[in-house]
Amino acid sequence: MPKFDQVTIAGLGLIGGSLGMALRRRRAAKRIVGLSRSRDTIRKALARRAIHAGTTDARAAVRDADLVVIAAPVDLIVPMAGRLARMMRPGAVITDVGSTKAAIVAALRRLPNRVAFVGSHPIAGSEQRGLAAASPTLFDKASCVVTPAPGTSPAALRKVRALWEAAGLRVVAMSPAAHDRLLAAGSHLPHLVAFSLAASLDPTSLSIVPRSLLDMTRVAKSDAELWDDIFISNRDAVLTAASRYARAFAALLQPVAAGSRPRLRRLLARAQRHRHALERR
Amino acid sequence: MPKFDQVTIAGLGLIGGSLGMALRRRRAAKRIVGLSRSRDTIRKALARRAIHAGTTDARAAVRDADLVVIAAPVDLIVPMAGRLARMMRPGAVITDVGSTKAAIVAALRRLPNRVAFVGSHPIAGSEQRGLAAASPTLFDKASCVVTPAPGTSPAALRKVRALWEAAGLRVVAMSPAAHDRLLAAGSHLPHLVAFSLAASLDPTSLSIVPRSLLDMTRVAKSDAELWDDIFISNRDAVLTAASRYARAFAALLQPVAAGSRPRLRRLLARAQRHRHALERR
Repeated sequence: MPKFDQVTIAGLGLIGGSLGMALRRRRAAKRIVGLSRSRDTIRKALARRAIHAGTTDARAAVRDADLVVIAAPVDLIVPMAGRLARMMRPGAVITDVGSTKAAIVAALRRLPNRVAFVGSHPIAGSEQRGLAAASPTLFDKASCVVTPAPGTSPAALRKVRALWEAAGLRVVAMSPAAHDRLLAAGSHLPHLVAFSLAASLDPTSLSIVPRSLLDMTRVAKSDAELWDDIFISNRDAVLTAASRYARAFAALLQPVAAGSRPRLRRLLARAQRHRHALERR
Repeated sequence: MPKFDQVTIAGLGLIGGSLGMALRRRRAAKRIVGLSRSRDTIRKALARRAIHAGTTDARAAVRDADLVVIAAPVDLIVPMAGRLARMMRPGAVITDVGSTKAAIVAALRRLPNRVAFVGSHPIAGSEQRGLAAASPTLFDKASCVVTPAPGTSPAALRKVRALWEAAGLRVVAMSPAAHDRLLAAGSHLPHLVAFSLAASLDPTSLSIVPRSLLDMTRVAKSDAELWDDIFISNRDAVLTAASRYARAFAALLQPVAAGSRPRLRRLLARAQRHRHALERR
């Protein structure tokens, strides 16, 4: 039996579209409504069975919703939530899919109309973007972090948990700050490293392109227009993870420069143990 | 018609085993002989059709060879070449598969017995190691760099080119120094970055492991015992590529720290253009 009467997804890109498909497929809501500025996107979302109905009219999209999911780039989430809350019914819930949480959760502590906000971040994605890349299986085996903060309504938190579980994700709760540290180390830093590696190379000088270079720069194909906002909105945690990494990089260069095989081998072996530990999780 | 009477492969691991399989499959030599310290490895190489015959006796392995390929870790290539040359027939040729070239080529400029050395580096590999991971298709679509230096015999260079072409590789000639710069930027640096990223993280703190972290540390699963020698034997080019990269990393952090979206977006967009240029090659 559907858990929700109406879920509205504001933003029908890769994440919003995939969420709609997963929810429809699993009959998690009686009605899934899509909100987009583009009629063409709405038509495509209907054709791909990502939504039951769609509109470009924000008020029509959200006024009957139990739950609104804002599936938009990080810098648009706060203004959209503020605007949509005014049109929602009292006591309804908003969540989001943003890759950083502390700044968003702090900004949305109090919304008009007694609307409750609970931060979410489904950890899934692709180098691609947009509805065309959306898939009902994008979230298969994925986790979603929900980020309750002091003052978060337990009922709203339960609703948001239920949404992600209904879409097939494993839900993990942690504070917004813990989320941001985790993502800084596990996602934002790796992206920053890939972008730096790509930035540092002179592609015209490479008569042969080894596979390791392609592999290590692949995530730099991700949308630059999403990533500038992610890096900046998670600035503190990103800078902390980056300086820890820069120290590790400098530490590895020392025995290379000194020609010290045993010390270099110890550091490489420790790095490998860390890498293997990731796969056992 | 086979191009060689006898090719001897000294070292039957991932690269030596795969080369033997590719050469046998393509009937590139009348006789492919394997040299290994391990009888068990020789048995397995025979069973996997990587060689026609194998021995643990260096003299027996190389005395009738037109061409000896040393498929050993970087630090063993120079001593093995010196030892084997004394047992080879005058005018025969040695090549190798080492991931760095300048130091090896300089050390092997003059060999006993008028044996000629030409440096090679087939650009292929895997995180795995050993004959068990060898495959006749490892070199499919791969390139091999050959590194003639002043004084390299043109006839020996032709022979070595012919070997790799017979195994199905595209052959590119460049100086040992140009090879080392190319590999420092295209392979050694990406590995160093992956090892550093793995070294800098605390695997126990990651309750969720995003895919980008797994992707960006995968090459750190490569054999640490090979990589310490590669980094150290290509020290100068690695340190040059590393400092260029460290500058690019620091340059990306500046607009993150300053919260400067337009500047950050410009740098990310440039990195992406470099990345896309790699794929168009």
